[in-house]
Amino acid sequence: MSKIDKLAVNTIRVLSAEAIQKANSGHPGLPLGSAPMAYTLWSKYLKHNPKDPKWENRDRFILSAGHASMLLYSLLHMFGYQVSMEDIKNFRQWESVTPGHPEYGLTDGVEATSGPLGQGIAMAVGFAMAEAHLAAEFNKPGYNVVDHYTYALTGDGCLQEGVSGEASSFAGTQKLGKLIVLYDKNDITIEGNIDCAFDEDVKKRYKAYGWQVLEVEDGNEDMKAIAAAIEEAKEEKERPSLIIVKTAIAYGCPAKQGSESSHGSPLGQDNIDAMKKNLGWEYEEAFVVPEEVKKHIAELQEVYSAEEAQWKDLFAKYEKEYPELAAQYKAYHLPVSEDIFDDAYWDFEDKPMATRDCSNVIINRLAAKLPNLMGGSADLGPANKSTMKERAWFSPQDRTGTNVHFGIREFAMAAMCNGMMLHGGVRPYCATFLVFSDYMKSAIRMSALMKLPVTYVLSHDSIGVGEDGATHEPIEHLAALRATPGVYMWRPADGHETAAAYKAAMTKNAPAAVALSRQNLPLMKETGEGALRGAYILKDGGGTPDVILIGTGSEVELCMNAAEELKKDGVSARVVSMPCMDLFEEQDAAYKESVLPGAVRARVAVEAGTSFGWAKYVGLDGGYVTIDHFGASAPAGVLFEKFGFTTQAVVDKAKEVLGK
Amino acid sequence: MSKIDKLAVNTIRVLSAEAIQKANSGHPGLPLGSAPMAYTLWSKYLKHNPKDPKWENRDRFILSAGHASMLLYSLLHMFGYQVSMEDIKNFRQWESVTPGHPEYGLTDGVEATSGPLGQGIAMAVGFAMAEAHLAAEFNKPGYNVVDHYTYALTGDGCLQEGVSGEASSFAGTQKLGKLIVLYDKNDITIEGNIDCAFDEDVKKRYKAYGWQVLEVEDGNEDMKAIAAAIEEAKEEKERPSLIIVKTAIAYGCPAKQGSESSHGSPLGQDNIDAMKKNLGWEYEEAFVVPEEVKKHIAELQEVYSAEEAQWKDLFAKYEKEYPELAAQYKAYHLPVSEDIFDDAYWDFEDKPMATRDCSNVIINRLAAKLPNLMGGSADLGPANKSTMKERAWFSPQDRTGTNVHFGIREFAMAAMCNGMMLHGGVRPYCATFLVFSDYMKSAIRMSALMKLPVTYVLSHDSIGVGEDGATHEPIEHLAALRATPGVYMWRPADGHETAAAYKAAMTKNAPAAVALSRQNLPLMKETGEGALRGAYILKDGGGTPDVILIGTGSEVELCMNAAEELKKDGVSARVVSMPCMDLFEEQDAAYKESVLPGAVRARVAVEAGTSFGWAKYVGLDGGYVTIDHFGASAPAGVLFEKFGFTTQAVVDKAKEVLGK
Repeated sequence: MSKIDKLAVNTIRVLSAEAIQKANSGHPGLPLGSAPMAYTLWSKYLKHNPKDPKWENRDRFILSAGHASMLLYSLLHMFGYQVSMEDIKNFRQWESVTPGHPEYGLTDGVEATSGPLGQGIAMAVGFAMAEAHLAAEFNKPGYNVVDHYTYALTGDGCLQEGVSGEASSFAGTQKLGKLIVLYDKNDITIEGNIDCAFDEDVKKRYKAYGWQVLEVEDGNEDMKAIAAAIEEAKEEKERPSLIIVKTAIAYGCPAKQGSESSHGSPLGQDNIDAMKKNLGWEYEEAFVVPEEVKKHIAELQEVYSAEEAQWKDLFAKYEKEYPELAAQYKAYHLPVSEDIFDDAYWDFEDKPMATRDCSNVIINRLAAKLPNLMGGSADLGPANKSTMKERAWFSPQDRTGTNVHFGIREFAMAAMCNGMMLHGGVRPYCATFLVFSDYMKSAIRMSALMKLPVTYVLSHDSIGVGEDGATHEPIEHLAALRATPGVYMWRPADGHETAAAYKAAMTKNAPAAVALSRQNLPLMKETGEGALRGAYILKDGGGTPDVILIGTGSEVELCMNAAEELKKDGVSARVVSMPCMDLFEEQDAAYKESVLPGAVRARVAVEAGTSFGWAKYVGLDGGYVTIDHFGASAPAGVLFEKFGFTTQAVVDKAKEVLGK
Repeated sequence: MSKIDKLAVNTIRVLSAEAIQKANSGHPGLPLGSAPMAYTLWSKYLKHNPKDPKWENRDRFILSAGHASMLLYSLLHMFGYQVSMEDIKNFRQWESVTPGHPEYGLTDGVEATSGPLGQGIAMAVGFAMAEAHLAAEFNKPGYNVVDHYTYALTGDGCLQEGVSGEASSFAGTQKLGKLIVLYDKNDITIEGNIDCAFDEDVKKRYKAYGWQVLEVEDGNEDMKAIAAAIEEAKEEKERPSLIIVKTAIAYGCPAKQGSESSHGSPLGQDNIDAMKKNLGWEYEEAFVVPEEVKKHIAELQEVYSAEEAQWKDLFAKYEKEYPELAAQYKAYHLPVSEDIFDDAYWDFEDKPMATRDCSNVIINRLAAKLPNLMGGSADLGPANKSTMKERAWFSPQDRTGTNVHFGIREFAMAAMCNGMMLHGGVRPYCATFLVFSDYMKSAIRMSALMKLPVTYVLSHDSIGVGEDGATHEPIEHLAALRATPGVYMWRPADGHETAAAYKAAMTKNAPAAVALSRQNLPLMKETGEGALRGAYILKDGGGTPDVILIGTGSEVELCMNAAEELKKDGVSARVVSMPCMDLFEEQDAAYKESVLPGAVRARVAVEAGTSFGWAKYVGLDGGYVTIDHFGASAPAGVLFEKFGFTTQAVVDKAKEVLGK
């Protein structure tokens, strides 16, 4: 290690330990051990420009081991991102840009929110997919306008999680050679030595996935070996690379090195003092970046600026030679325009259709307008109806493909879509059965945390699944996703509402989940753009209604029929379709009152899902036609009948709440 | 293949295809391809007794590829379980015992509910753990009273899921040599040839996990090779075994063999006729088990009965020689007795304690009474406080250990606990942070579907997490688990209520999730066994209250303080602690009315979680002190203050709903 490199590495170590100590909270072990590999990467290989952190052709760095956030904040600070020493001192404090785990959108230079283990690797795979696709789409001989690497740094924890295995298997299959994962192997986890829970051969496992696996024996000191491994990884274009870097947790801190006690607690001031001495650190005061280090990095900054300038030159020439492509490249990086939702977009033939089929129509209408739409299913494409016609499949042989075989890996699929969206340039969506949203829930939550408009296509949305039975029939899933902040949970009743769901999905900075029926539903003349308010009146008796029937999806039809029946009995029933509670909540009070007048307390919620959450609209005096137990295996029609989803049941419940 | 074996295998094939055809729904591909391996196992190796399907020392067979349910039902019928030909004809029909995916508890001989892919393998690992532990606990020289294998049958899908990888890594680490997985490798998934999504080397991957991997080249015809592989697998006692059996999907059906179209749709009557001809099947009529097959299996039945009789003899002798052990063995297999919850169980010292610490006290009190309590954490033991003192760790060196290092594998952990509970003899629990219940949600759902009393210990239950920030702070998770049918979601306020939660967890036939605070909470003299009704009055002004404050967990204290403040202002506030909504819902109407009188509409829900779901108790006129957005990183006290969880905020909200 050169003197300046050593000093810089120790700066990371000391800064991290000091910030954690000041916060009296945090994870020093990993930053200390992984400082050499991270600094080697950042100073010698990472193509980035701290003065323009959103430069599209930068290399991406994802800290999968999010608890090592101080490693990242130290790097960001030292390399000149908008993370000040004051921010470092405010680590883990209210309204700081240095939260306990890195948060995308909050902190300059943070590429992804991380912390929930394993997902960082999966997101990195998504970044690498996006890069590979965009490169194929836009590069021309002499013009590699899209050409960067994706790096991730992970600890033992991420590699134990199934989601990283799923994503790594996908990356190997797809030969994403520009993905490079640095694995800080310190063999220590919270419960002690890693062997007690994880004695597999990670090297062999990654080779089995089709990866190149490299090893660095001494990650604590040997930056040369780290550099050589990164270079070898960069050379390999066919296979993704895993670089196993052996380190000691809390390296440099005599009393803590190698001990699990350094994982998640401050080292203690005494131990920091001892570490400084041990490392030959000359500064007694805390929070110092030595002048030599500042100067060295300032010199590197010139390189970074030059690199971006060079790319800008290249792009300017490209724009002249390939004006259409260049325009399209720019369009890929813009939000979806409202203009694409023309009359034809909303138009559906008047015939019964499952909303999963409506969804396929809409996906293909969008695909015609949005060439950067990219997505697929976790091996349920034919059932989810999620495939784009006239689009190729993404594969090692054809990177221009935008249909994706994600494989039977729901969780990684969702996390990879987060990575694709974070990368930019592509618009990802993914599909599975609604019941299996459980498998990817944490990644959906991450979409919401990061405000990423990933679209989740979730077909087979109720007991309408039928014969597949209870294991495949969602009950609580609509509620679970409605309860999740920042997710727009849609359950459209027909083609018009499906169109509304996708319009919202494409134009909001938030994930949308779209629950779709397996079974046919009628197209309703009453439905339409009103759905964009989340809930709206489909049918009304005029004046103040006696009772309000609130339905979603396949049950809106029941409400419509029940209203007709009630009318015969002299009851004025209003039917409210509520395809998206989350959106309705955002409407102003006057609109809400106009749809659900506070004075009308006779209300019935009708949905083939749990009643949980519906009380918000039906209150203590309302009624439910819902299902609060698991489903069963039988033809769908039988199940709806047996579980009480009939016009008569809605009529009866309406009369019950009316006291008739 | 001998003539009779061939006939039996073809019986499975034809029966499966015919039942699926009659139902006009189902998955014929896998049953046709895997019939030889399944029949070889069942007829020659599986130690079981169809006349006594609950015999404790039987081998276990888990169909991880649950969509191949007709394979299992055919076997169960042919081998004499309580699955009649009428049941086969009622495949996938209302109230049949032959649902679309196998369901534990519904169908004789079904060891586990399966269908959600990957979890069957993880459950099988749990079965093997339970066997290994019980064998170590009870076997004596000459008395292997616990001595059986666990078999699973899986397709390509299960092996792509991360959860199977997590569990397999665990099984390798733990050297669970009596676990044998048959992998029907037909290389076809719903979206086509498997290579498009999954071209990894599964053999190498499993070797990396520390498994023995065996291969059978021709799984369609070569039962001898299948038998040899099973024998080799049984011989290997150190490593779990994966037997890769190459087959053709829909083998035997000329038009469908090798095609993904056979995965999830009936073959068509024409194709069944062609298949019968192709297989040399002599019976034109449907639903036939040839007499020779019946006779052959009847002979096998004698072997099975003899095997169990032999074990019973062994156990009788064991009981004489080791009466105490035999008594304990029997006790292990009984439900938890109410008697263990004596006064000492409920007693807590009057000092502030985090409920995660209370939980540790209770877990250890239970451990003292329940030697078969077995569990651990996904590498968060010290944070979840889930470790049993004075208990060894389960390891290859010490199978008597009951503390488990599950590793950073939440999903597999939960599925493995399901497997342990299904095996019987042990009482499993598992722990992680509440926010990471997302990772294992589908397995929690499976606990509920199967009515398994697995206990989920979920610490760090709110923004009280503090500095770790938004990624680690649950918001929607209480709601999501409350919405899930059959899960008892607890959020105790102190030690007394924690004791109640665990008492309910131990004595109900359903999973319990227990959300626990990171931060200290006071012990309340008002709390206690009333918590077992789900919600109860902690404080009352006498007479009809003006306002009802409903709180859970850490927010009950706020309610208590707010009630005092309100009293000063002449407002009579009732405080209701509601540690378990699910349990409150089960109370009779009179009790519910006594706690939450219908006439009192001024109600406030107070919980550091989403408001979603609380309207059921506060209605359209109530108020909320809740959090409907993501958390942040700062000391917990700051977050509670900033996000409005203060006594004053509760007082203000109470006055607001009172219109004061």
